[in-house]
Amino acid sequence: MRFGSQWRGAVRGAMAGAALMMVAALSPAMAAQPVPPAAKPLTIQAQGSFFVGGHDVHSDTLSTAPGRGAVGTITVDQMYVSYQIPLHARRYPITLIHGCCLTAKSWETTPDGRMGWQEYFVRKGFSTYTIDQVARGRSAFDPSAINSVKMGKTAPDTLPALFAAGHEEAWTVFRFGPEYPKPYPNLQFPLEAQAELWKQLVPDWFAALPSPNPTVPNLSKLAQQLHGTILMSHSQGGVYPFQTAALSTSGIAGIVAIEPTVCPEPTGDMSPYTKMPILVVYGDNVEIAPRWAPRLQKCRAFIDAVAKAGGKAKLVLLPEVGFRGNSHMLMQDRNSLKVADWLLDWIDRNIEKKS
Amino acid sequence: MRFGSQWRGAVRGAMAGAALMMVAALSPAMAAQPVPPAAKPLTIQAQGSFFVGGHDVHSDTLSTAPGRGAVGTITVDQMYVSYQIPLHARRYPITLIHGCCLTAKSWETTPDGRMGWQEYFVRKGFSTYTIDQVARGRSAFDPSAINSVKMGKTAPDTLPALFAAGHEEAWTVFRFGPEYPKPYPNLQFPLEAQAELWKQLVPDWFAALPSPNPTVPNLSKLAQQLHGTILMSHSQGGVYPFQTAALSTSGIAGIVAIEPTVCPEPTGDMSPYTKMPILVVYGDNVEIAPRWAPRLQKCRAFIDAVAKAGGKAKLVLLPEVGFRGNSHMLMQDRNSLKVADWLLDWIDRNIEKKS
Repeated sequence: MRFGSQWRGAVRGAMAGAALMMVAALSPAMAAQPVPPAAKPLTIQAQGSFFVGGHDVHSDTLSTAPGRGAVGTITVDQMYVSYQIPLHARRYPITLIHGCCLTAKSWETTPDGRMGWQEYFVRKGFSTYTIDQVARGRSAFDPSAINSVKMGKTAPDTLPALFAAGHEEAWTVFRFGPEYPKPYPNLQFPLEAQAELWKQLVPDWFAALPSPNPTVPNLSKLAQQLHGTILMSHSQGGVYPFQTAALSTSGIAGIVAIEPTVCPEPTGDMSPYTKMPILVVYGDNVEIAPRWAPRLQKCRAFIDAVAKAGGKAKLVLLPEVGFRGNSHMLMQDRNSLKVADWLLDWIDRNIEKKS
Repeated sequence: MRFGSQWRGAVRGAMAGAALMMVAALSPAMAAQPVPPAAKPLTIQAQGSFFVGGHDVHSDTLSTAPGRGAVGTITVDQMYVSYQIPLHARRYPITLIHGCCLTAKSWETTPDGRMGWQEYFVRKGFSTYTIDQVARGRSAFDPSAINSVKMGKTAPDTLPALFAAGHEEAWTVFRFGPEYPKPYPNLQFPLEAQAELWKQLVPDWFAALPSPNPTVPNLSKLAQQLHGTILMSHSQGGVYPFQTAALSTSGIAGIVAIEPTVCPEPTGDMSPYTKMPILVVYGDNVEIAPRWAPRLQKCRAFIDAVAKAGGKAKLVLLPEVGFRGNSHMLMQDRNSLKVADWLLDWIDRNIEKKS
């Protein structure tokens, strides 16, 4: 069967790292899951991609590459969006907003070759709009400041502050364990495929961009174009739906923030956040993780403030609803589709049914 | 109808630039095409994404962003691949390889909101594997050299040679006209949506990477994993299939190079290129474009040399087969799907039928 051969080829690609690690004799508990049989076919009403936002800037340091002009106009701050619309789509699309050092790839095939949330949501009847943050992935960054220093026009300290997450630091950021390379005993992340996760990481321009990140006004435009969408964010992107709501609540049907690193200050104006159902979700081992415990505390204070202001806002630690061992990358954990089912049920009860 | 509203939202995004330009009173010939009705639903057997290649490097200049560690291991030189497999896929998938300053977005929805070749090929029964070149899009670059200069460890001249294509230079590179902003009279590119094309451009690390580009060995691995694929490349990526074949012909069922900037030297070893059908395609106005005429001449010499060595290789200028006015971005031109039909017919006669 032709299909089988091609698909196995693809899966072999995704699993190459895992296979190598298995050869390197990991513990049996970390052995790769068998590759699941192909799911049933998926029928798409429409799919494609487009950009939101962006503006033109003039630069005279566009290039330090040979034979290329340095002077001209480029477009920056646009946000790449790809979408899939299933047959008989439900009322509100889900807009997927990735986190630090990552791209929309976060939501696609997992490191160990299982279906990602983007496809799963489409199969469950939701249109998905998946973004690459401004200056990341398919959303261009502006290289002018780098070229300017190379050309001797500006000083090295004007270079953008870039950040690539090393595997060792990502280990604790992603809450795989208390320290690299020690895992939490109940960890759900498929560590045997960690090499495939590391390939997803891209350098992060966040610290070099204005605040709020230009991704935020772009999300607002997108939400309004869609006449209503659920903003589902992760990690560094976790706060973006709240910042978007502070700009305008128009088009925001609900917010699901997965493991946000930051929430709005609870002392600020809570009124935008009373206009839509809000769910903040964290995985397991949060309170014992020095990096995460204070973040959880602050987001809890925010959610309490929203509730006090009359909003419908909830913070859930996954162990409270029966899921144990989830990492920061919970959309890639072994139980990711079960967590997705739980989220979709929450969306169904709190957003879809209310509309 | 729910779907209609969401889809129009997306299209409105893609067309925002075009609409603005129309307000700015373009000539009627440049007015946007009406948005086509949604195509019939598309059934996918499987879809997803994975990486090919990549290796770990240690760096002590991973970060100049506040609160982030600078020392650790990152993975570089991996190539992002997304795929869609239709029901009853044809024998050979098409691997789509974008060009300079672009990402896989080149092959998706066109700047004026029409269906791109990636989806069209899937609808015509071909599995597609679409890549982001190494150090571009969702394939990470290594920021260590930039951070090193910012930290004062190395001199500014060690910064990578980056290149962002300005609209003005891209105008002649993409053969929209003889000089910016003058178009060729017969131009097929939808200029009213040019603002949406400029948003696709991303900085290019090509000059900062080794030669051959690490994308090339990754393409070889991918071709072998797929047990046969048609490598379809564009522009800067145009030479990659030939460089891949020079590494190993294994897995390469055929090569379609769209507007390559470079072809192999005709004086070299032609034997790898005799192992698979080869088609090189250029659009219109090539011979009158100072940047393109010499490239055409060199690729013609290469194709002649392959034929002389017993290979099945052909170079076609689209006007020779009845298509006029095609730009360098011919997969986005107004007649892009008609050109695609012609290419698929060539593939059918020269690759599929022979297998």
